[in-house]
Amino acid sequence: MDAIVALAKRRGFIFQSSEIYGGLNGFFDYGPLGAELKKNIRDCWWDDTVRRRDDMVGVETSIIMHPKVWEASGHVAGFTDPLVDCRVSKQRYRADQLFFAAVIVDGSTVGYVSALESEKTGEDLQAAAENFKRKRAIQGQLTPVQPRDMTEAKPEEVALIPSPATGNPGDLTAPRAFNMMFQTNVGAMTDASSVAYLRPETAQGMFVDFRNVVDTGRVKLPFGIAQIGKSFRNEITPRNFIFRSREFEQMEMEYFIHPDADWLACHEEWLQWCRNWLISVGIPETHLSLFEHPKEKLAFYSRRTVDIMFRYPFGVQELWGIAARSDYDLKQHQEHSGVPQVYFDEATKQKVVPHVIEPAVGVDRIVLAVLCAGYAEEDVKDDKGNVEKRTVLRLSPRIAPVKVAVLPLLKNKEPLVARAKELYTRLKRRYPVFYDEAGAIGRRYRRQDEIGTPWCVTIDFDTIEKDGSFTLRERDSMQQRRIQEPELFALLEERVY
Amino acid sequence: MDAIVALAKRRGFIFQSSEIYGGLNGFFDYGPLGAELKKNIRDCWWDDTVRRRDDMVGVETSIIMHPKVWEASGHVAGFTDPLVDCRVSKQRYRADQLFFAAVIVDGSTVGYVSALESEKTGEDLQAAAENFKRKRAIQGQLTPVQPRDMTEAKPEEVALIPSPATGNPGDLTAPRAFNMMFQTNVGAMTDASSVAYLRPETAQGMFVDFRNVVDTGRVKLPFGIAQIGKSFRNEITPRNFIFRSREFEQMEMEYFIHPDADWLACHEEWLQWCRNWLISVGIPETHLSLFEHPKEKLAFYSRRTVDIMFRYPFGVQELWGIAARSDYDLKQHQEHSGVPQVYFDEATKQKVVPHVIEPAVGVDRIVLAVLCAGYAEEDVKDDKGNVEKRTVLRLSPRIAPVKVAVLPLLKNKEPLVARAKELYTRLKRRYPVFYDEAGAIGRRYRRQDEIGTPWCVTIDFDTIEKDGSFTLRERDSMQQRRIQEPELFALLEERVY
Repeated sequence: MDAIVALAKRRGFIFQSSEIYGGLNGFFDYGPLGAELKKNIRDCWWDDTVRRRDDMVGVETSIIMHPKVWEASGHVAGFTDPLVDCRVSKQRYRADQLFFAAVIVDGSTVGYVSALESEKTGEDLQAAAENFKRKRAIQGQLTPVQPRDMTEAKPEEVALIPSPATGNPGDLTAPRAFNMMFQTNVGAMTDASSVAYLRPETAQGMFVDFRNVVDTGRVKLPFGIAQIGKSFRNEITPRNFIFRSREFEQMEMEYFIHPDADWLACHEEWLQWCRNWLISVGIPETHLSLFEHPKEKLAFYSRRTVDIMFRYPFGVQELWGIAARSDYDLKQHQEHSGVPQVYFDEATKQKVVPHVIEPAVGVDRIVLAVLCAGYAEEDVKDDKGNVEKRTVLRLSPRIAPVKVAVLPLLKNKEPLVARAKELYTRLKRRYPVFYDEAGAIGRRYRRQDEIGTPWCVTIDFDTIEKDGSFTLRERDSMQQRRIQEPELFALLEERVY
Repeated sequence: MDAIVALAKRRGFIFQSSEIYGGLNGFFDYGPLGAELKKNIRDCWWDDTVRRRDDMVGVETSIIMHPKVWEASGHVAGFTDPLVDCRVSKQRYRADQLFFAAVIVDGSTVGYVSALESEKTGEDLQAAAENFKRKRAIQGQLTPVQPRDMTEAKPEEVALIPSPATGNPGDLTAPRAFNMMFQTNVGAMTDASSVAYLRPETAQGMFVDFRNVVDTGRVKLPFGIAQIGKSFRNEITPRNFIFRSREFEQMEMEYFIHPDADWLACHEEWLQWCRNWLISVGIPETHLSLFEHPKEKLAFYSRRTVDIMFRYPFGVQELWGIAARSDYDLKQHQEHSGVPQVYFDEATKQKVVPHVIEPAVGVDRIVLAVLCAGYAEEDVKDDKGNVEKRTVLRLSPRIAPVKVAVLPLLKNKEPLVARAKELYTRLKRRYPVFYDEAGAIGRRYRRQDEIGTPWCVTIDFDTIEKDGSFTLRERDSMQQRRIQEPELFALLEERVY
């Protein structure tokens, strides 16, 4: 993971936001290559989801919406994390990330210890318990600690658990609900009447505009509405680089189906579609798995949720959630707005509230996934047979920031340079390409390997003196072959779509 | 203007945000066609600005940045509108939009009248003055009113000017500075330490990341950094549809030049470039003009600002601002962050703080401009010579939401439908296209005219029985000609880029 963060910074993929001011926790900037990579992921998704399908339309709804949207959706009341304060240090903790354990000696509880969640929370608590016993010179047999988090603390235990900041019991508050929506005020007033929120998800935009789309979009059930856009969540502990940040970008769809339709088949279809899409942008099947949310943990309206999981260096984590949400959202908005959220079914001549399948994925999580899956350090042999290390980023041609690097063999040979620039100009009209004449050809290949460029073409003396062909060098295999210009364009047409 | 707003809503270009909840003033949603149009504008700009130039890189920086960024940029202190409160009604007004006049009878001031800015502010005030005189039965000669806005009110006048809400003098406050940045809190605390702002412009992202780009992007002066993204301004009186909204999208560049470079020539070049770009996406030259900001109104660091103006139905207004900002921004960040914002100049072996040319344009304003310039209602003759009205949206093929509509002449002739769908599928891989088999061919053309589709192709019996050619119908001229499939692809390749 450290190598990936370092590469992301070194080659201008991802920077910490406001770095010269010490950064801002949970916010990131995309540099020149990162911005291209992210745009390519968005564009591929939009093309495949919206433009190439006949049953999907796109929208772009505002980030700040009417506050009643979030009352209807349940976010005002329920989009919360449990939070614990330390009254003395003013530190705040997510209750489910603050662990504690009773220190039990010879069967009696003699005190409590606490520790912040880490890879070795259990060991930390055990060590703290032993330390507790030793310091107080308590004799007897220490029972191995049983870690629990603060959401599991009984009311009478809260006052006995030491604050991780001060080490003293009595400083922590009981967990309380902390709303994760960023709040602001719209208009000149700063009071309750002007409170608004930054959206914590793009999904509600599709529900709120459902009627407008039905009225104007010439859509017929089943159909979907898709959107790409920024969302914001005031995470108490953002972490794992861009995996869980406070400002992030989502690609969500709401696929509306008839209430009598086979929702399970549709859910299964979307699950397959999403999985195939990830593979189409270069995510290896070996890194993917599925996680079905247990029935008893689903919200009452939810019929099924399956997450496509990705094996990140820090663990297997959610990448794409595919939820069957029944008609809950449209019905909530119908009730709160008083505006019927219905579709007129021509076949039965009835008005129905459609049900919905919702596949939701984060662009930043895909960026991180392709960087993690694509990154490799390899031993390779140079022309003279010496082993050297190369860093390579195996990005799919669909999303690679640069598709082709055009390299004249030598930079001081005018005909080579002229021919290379000519090709470069023609390619540039359609594809993001890069021209590089600086340094030995091997070094130039390595530079492109590191930023994920799938192909390099080298213009050499044969190109200008013989048949016009040039060398195509392939990033992954490092193999080289001679091709003609039309073949190059045909290759790009096929692989970059 | 009303016709354009109606079309935008009717055909799913633009909706009011959160409409089912009564809307949210100053926020808009883009519907299926609007989202495509907006994306095409962004993509054309990105391709031309970033990908097709050798001296420009793109970034995507976060909307919420470190609050010190906005102290350094001057926005915390100075990004304000003058605001006047009515103490009784709690209404708030922008001082420069609240007008007043003394009521002068026979040379003596007998009172004051006020009116909100409108197209006839002067008349309103004159009528109010006459009314004032009549009601109080004041005899004598009324001097024609001299409208001023509240920023021009003398301190002793403020108490004499009636509030537009209550009609009573004494209710209005003196103008005060109201910061237009939306404010929020990041993290679990809600106090001064956690205050953050939604960016009011994307530009600062490029300045704050300047060093990171220089260190990683292999850039050489002169070079630019470009960005597309949402910005937020808490306008007191958002108006003119999407022209001045509270949430909007910007496309900005910071073009860095050597301090000794000819900044005026560079400024002039960008001015031309931006103007040409607008023309390339279909904005008629006839609607464009230039406005040079008077020297005495420029900020002290600013060398020159010229706006490209567009003739909207509500007046000639700023579309694209091109500013020569010297080294002010980088120096401000250097001072506030303590991190040198320098570039090492290989030629002179010196570290320099570059100067900057900043072309800044709003995506929403371009959307509105192309809708306004492209909209027309025309009398046309149908096949039988009858005059009928057609609504047409003359959008450039570069940005039109749908590039080609594929129409089988008849929907119940299987070979026509099959051939049409086959063509549709091939086109769809590369271009946003539309398939339509419902209704008379003339009506189908009209539908496409109204949403700005540049070309329709009709598959008829000649297509399948003769040479495979089909009818290409051109939106603007309404002319039809026979072409073969490769010609269609060549046409698209040339015109959609």
